[in-house]
Amino acid sequence: MPKQDRAIRTRRGIVEAAAGVFEERGFRATTIAEILARGQVTKGALYFHFASKEALARGLLEEQSPDGVPLLQRSIRLQEVVDAIALQAYRLRTDPVVRAAVRLSMDEAALGGSRGDAFVQWSGRLAVTLEAAAAQGELLPHVVPSASADVIVSAFAGVQSMSQAVSGYADLAERVEALARHLMPAIAVPPILASLDFDVDRIARATIEHARANEEEVVDVG
Amino acid sequence: MPKQDRAIRTRRGIVEAAAGVFEERGFRATTIAEILARGQVTKGALYFHFASKEALARGLLEEQSPDGVPLLQRSIRLQEVVDAIALQAYRLRTDPVVRAAVRLSMDEAALGGSRGDAFVQWSGRLAVTLEAAAAQGELLPHVVPSASADVIVSAFAGVQSMSQAVSGYADLAERVEALARHLMPAIAVPPILASLDFDVDRIARATIEHARANEEEVVDVG
Repeated sequence: MPKQDRAIRTRRGIVEAAAGVFEERGFRATTIAEILARGQVTKGALYFHFASKEALARGLLEEQSPDGVPLLQRSIRLQEVVDAIALQAYRLRTDPVVRAAVRLSMDEAALGGSRGDAFVQWSGRLAVTLEAAAAQGELLPHVVPSASADVIVSAFAGVQSMSQAVSGYADLAERVEALARHLMPAIAVPPILASLDFDVDRIARATIEHARANEEEVVDVG
Repeated sequence: MPKQDRAIRTRRGIVEAAAGVFEERGFRATTIAEILARGQVTKGALYFHFASKEALARGLLEEQSPDGVPLLQRSIRLQEVVDAIALQAYRLRTDPVVRAAVRLSMDEAALGGSRGDAFVQWSGRLAVTLEAAAAQGELLPHVVPSASADVIVSAFAGVQSMSQAVSGYADLAERVEALARHLMPAIAVPPILASLDFDVDRIARATIEHARANEEEVVDVG
């Protein structure tokens, strides 16, 4: 295995171990020693990748950044906004690292000022898509893309938090669909609203199939 | 001072002290000793009111319960829903105990299963008001009051969390107004929607004046 691949694998292993320990113990109570034991890595390897527990938390937050979500291109750009939250709901339920990252971004005690970055980054990405939707005439005239993006991102954060609290995420897809159905009438012109697909599970499946197909293509070419 | 009044004052003092320490140190890291020192109460007094740190956290959560919000009766019942979140936004900015309680309800590590109760309690209260609004013909035909109540409560939780993260609550009123403006078009029939007041600060001021006026009445009668 090339040296660089090994480093990437080690880094991912550390992040996964940290996600597990943060989830069980909370950020503050977690010690570096526990992460080392869980990940079966040396202190040297951990500090090569992350200078501190806080740096590790920031690394985790990067894992849930919107850049990690492989979105399908849609002719209706507002559908991409619905897709983004449907997919993030899927990742929350299936990827412990994303789950730990979202929890950290909701945990004031953990990261202080820098937890706002996760909200701002997600909102920025959705605002770009909403601007594109506006350019295509998909948005109601009074909509301010950046303000609507903030509402969508922050409301999603609360919906996932309530779902985690009351059902351990079992009802997350249903709650995220309800959220999208509640927000879009304030954003979309009626013909676009009528054509949006709100089925969170179907969206997630389609996007994952698309991502897999693209991966295989890359393998074929290589 | 009658014995019962003294007990109520002591209890409130303990809850305020706990709110302050939880806010600074986080729930897990807080010790009973720190709360005793902050509140200048004896161990006996604290344990008379609260059997454990967890019981104290539950006491704090009760402080942010919807029963603590003195709502105005409105002829348009949906206005009461907007009022409820406007007022909670005001309480978050002005009452450290409510702030600590909301933070606890967003903190998975602190209370585990029972943090869901805060969501469920708030949603139950809003669902009752939404049912009343439906009976008056204020809601669009497809609206399910309990589902809309869940969306409103959880989205509010996320909006306050983002506001805290990015501005320390300085932009909370603006964000809560944006949330209400985004949700109500999916809930209200057009003539009701057009008549709703979304001005968070004005709503909070009016309700507080109303509560004060009622308190004075009680004093006059007594």
